[in-house]
Amino acid sequence: MAHDIRIVTEAELRAVVGLDRDTVGVIERAFGALSDGGVVMPPVLSMELAEAHGEVDVKTAYIPGFDGFAIKVSPGFFDNPKLGLPSLNGLMILFSARTGLVQAVFLDNGYLTDLRTAAAGAVAAQHLAPEVIHTAGIIGTGVQARLQARAAHLVRPCERLLIWGRDADKAQACARDLVDLGGEVRVTDDAADLVRDSQLVITTTPARQPVIEAAWLHPGLHITAMGSDQAGKNEIDPQALVRADLYVADRAAQVETLGELRSAIAAGIWDKGTPTELGDVIRGRAQGRRDDAQITICDLTGTGLQDTAIATHVMQRLAGGDVGTVITA
Amino acid sequence: MAHDIRIVTEAELRAVVGLDRDTVGVIERAFGALSDGGVVMPPVLSMELAEAHGEVDVKTAYIPGFDGFAIKVSPGFFDNPKLGLPSLNGLMILFSARTGLVQAVFLDNGYLTDLRTAAAGAVAAQHLAPEVIHTAGIIGTGVQARLQARAAHLVRPCERLLIWGRDADKAQACARDLVDLGGEVRVTDDAADLVRDSQLVITTTPARQPVIEAAWLHPGLHITAMGSDQAGKNEIDPQALVRADLYVADRAAQVETLGELRSAIAAGIWDKGTPTELGDVIRGRAQGRRDDAQITICDLTGTGLQDTAIATHVMQRLAGGDVGTVITA
Repeated sequence: MAHDIRIVTEAELRAVVGLDRDTVGVIERAFGALSDGGVVMPPVLSMELAEAHGEVDVKTAYIPGFDGFAIKVSPGFFDNPKLGLPSLNGLMILFSARTGLVQAVFLDNGYLTDLRTAAAGAVAAQHLAPEVIHTAGIIGTGVQARLQARAAHLVRPCERLLIWGRDADKAQACARDLVDLGGEVRVTDDAADLVRDSQLVITTTPARQPVIEAAWLHPGLHITAMGSDQAGKNEIDPQALVRADLYVADRAAQVETLGELRSAIAAGIWDKGTPTELGDVIRGRAQGRRDDAQITICDLTGTGLQDTAIATHVMQRLAGGDVGTVITA
Repeated sequence: MAHDIRIVTEAELRAVVGLDRDTVGVIERAFGALSDGGVVMPPVLSMELAEAHGEVDVKTAYIPGFDGFAIKVSPGFFDNPKLGLPSLNGLMILFSARTGLVQAVFLDNGYLTDLRTAAAGAVAAQHLAPEVIHTAGIIGTGVQARLQARAAHLVRPCERLLIWGRDADKAQACARDLVDLGGEVRVTDDAADLVRDSQLVITTTPARQPVIEAAWLHPGLHITAMGSDQAGKNEIDPQALVRADLYVADRAAQVETLGELRSAIAAGIWDKGTPTELGDVIRGRAQGRRDDAQITICDLTGTGLQDTAIATHVMQRLAGGDVGTVITA
């Protein structure tokens, strides 16, 4: 029986949904639901296409109370820049959680993934960072460096934003793109200085060797590490995880294999058992930051939960309107 | 960077691709590639949505030499008939195997899955059934009963087609739908008779208790069991697998958990080790049927390999034409 399916392009999506408090609220609600129970989130389906220097990941999750569930497909083909194409692409498909019928195809080229990833950073800052942030620091200079800075600003506006990257020109470009946030926005040439001066630091790199040393930790610091999303990546000195007063995971089962915790376990220094999950902090089922002097770290590896949340959110934004192309199939 | 993506509906797909020798050839080539090596086929991603009495499976595979790879999403929501909707739905997305860019979205509602599943039945018959089939028997009365009969007819035309199902009216309807195949097409009320009189039998049921008993096996019989595709299903008496001269799997690692072999292993009676794969028989790397008197069984659980093959095939059929809706995203 044919039914209507809405096909929406990246440009159309950019016009209707952005990084704002609504988006952060939806992602926060999804993490809360994970704590409430009943979320079904299978392990990521991963396929490597070695000949093409490519890989593809598929994520999904069912969240009780959400009308739909998303299947998100993220190809990464790392020779694409040689062809003038972006490495990362992909799309999301939204299905009815009641009938399984396809509701919408979001040809977003990864835009919605960027949004939901940044929004998780805001949720982490909201629930774990000190109340007042004078200086925030961003490590890395890519799309997420920009988006994480904006996400943090939504929940913890600061007077000064510092940016550090291995490539000083890219760091300057990133800083220029963020001047509209207001306050001082400047590049620093020393990551240690950045961490020392900041109360909130967000790492947004694909680093395979730590970019933050444990010795740099100081009272009143919160770090969100969102770069590690597969085995082999590592942004933070494993000692820092042990030394922090609190280490929080987006999903405990996932940080052990794909996140920062993997390196700490591999180094044989992790002795604190299963980490606290962000959703449990949101719901008050686990203790978050106790005071402004504590050192906290949040590890975001990216979850299908966020994909279902953002796709459902987009569909609500689109309801009743005529954005996209409706195909009867 | 925006690029063109072709969106094609079920009706449009039905107009350009059907169950014919080309389709069977493409599926045969894919199974051959599995034997040649280099195929990457991750385990199926499965998610249960218990509240909605639903499930969703995601399959994919990379096949060397194929331009694209498919991600196939198959939701099954078993309360849908109460709402006047089909239980099974879904779509396939075709990506470039070189760049990972989305090439096409096939809103097929499972049509391409039906085709590639039937085509695998033809490949099994072609490589394992006796050369001459006087009588073929179909067990089951659904979509695959019809398609498997047609697929078998492409490679092993017969003089007589017998159909058995638990519901006699549905069996009659199935027989009526197949009269165009020519020869005698009739319903039998006894599955044992059907098996006894046939040289080729295809089981197409969701049975959880065997519909074929081991005692019914006779020299010169080939059975293809295509109904079992998840733990819990079982169409053929496990003793039959042991008693047959040859038991062939679409994918050895999969029949052990999702196919007929699962039941034989669970019964503790399987003592023949890793089963022969269909691709190895196609390529001559494994012995197929030795003579017309042997008893052979082929177990088809359904593979992402077939999805990539049919999706790539469809894209070739569409090349240069204007079928579907092109969206720049």
